Amino acid sequence: MQSLEIIGLIAGACTTFSFVPQILKMWKSKSAKDISLGMYCIFSTGVILWVIYGAYINSLPLMIWNAVTLLFVLLIVYFKLRWK
Amino acid sequence: MQSLEIIGLIAGACTTFSFVPQILKMWKSKSAKDISLGMYCIFSTGVILWVIYGAYINSLPLMIWNAVTLLFVLLIVYFKLRWK
Repeated sequence: MQSLEIIGLIAGACTTFSFVPQILKMWKSKSAKDISLGMYCIFSTGVILWVIYGAYINSLPLMIWNAVTLLFVLLIVYFKLRWK
Repeated sequence: MQSLEIIGLIAGACTTFSFVPQILKMWKSKSAKDISLGMYCIFSTGVILWVIYGAYINSLPLMIWNAVTLLFVLLIVYFKLRWK
């Protein structure tokens, strides 16, 4: 694998899995007061569009990274609605 | 502009500007208790790598969207450190 591909892979892993600490924090504290619902709704919309864009240009990494991100982000939306 | 480019443009705008409502919420409440510092540190790293990746592949949109995102995300990190 070329160094360029590795950079793209690590970049995608970081921006996707960065949501895990936020999920764990909310899960432990059962609190979501400071979380912006607006942010995660807009972000979800963007991520869905990235999946569609990825499908159009036949980019499997773009589709997979964004699909996984969407799962994490929707979980944060659910926690926010549950714990306010 | 083709519909494909428009989808990519809206996707980028959503995932970049989604952080604005979070910034405004923190600014108004002066509170950041539920925000995960770990999330924003890992996300910043990812975004920096996307800028580098964008530079390598000569993708100006990738560089610009991620550079703007980085500004927003670093502001959230600053607020988090300031208001805990």
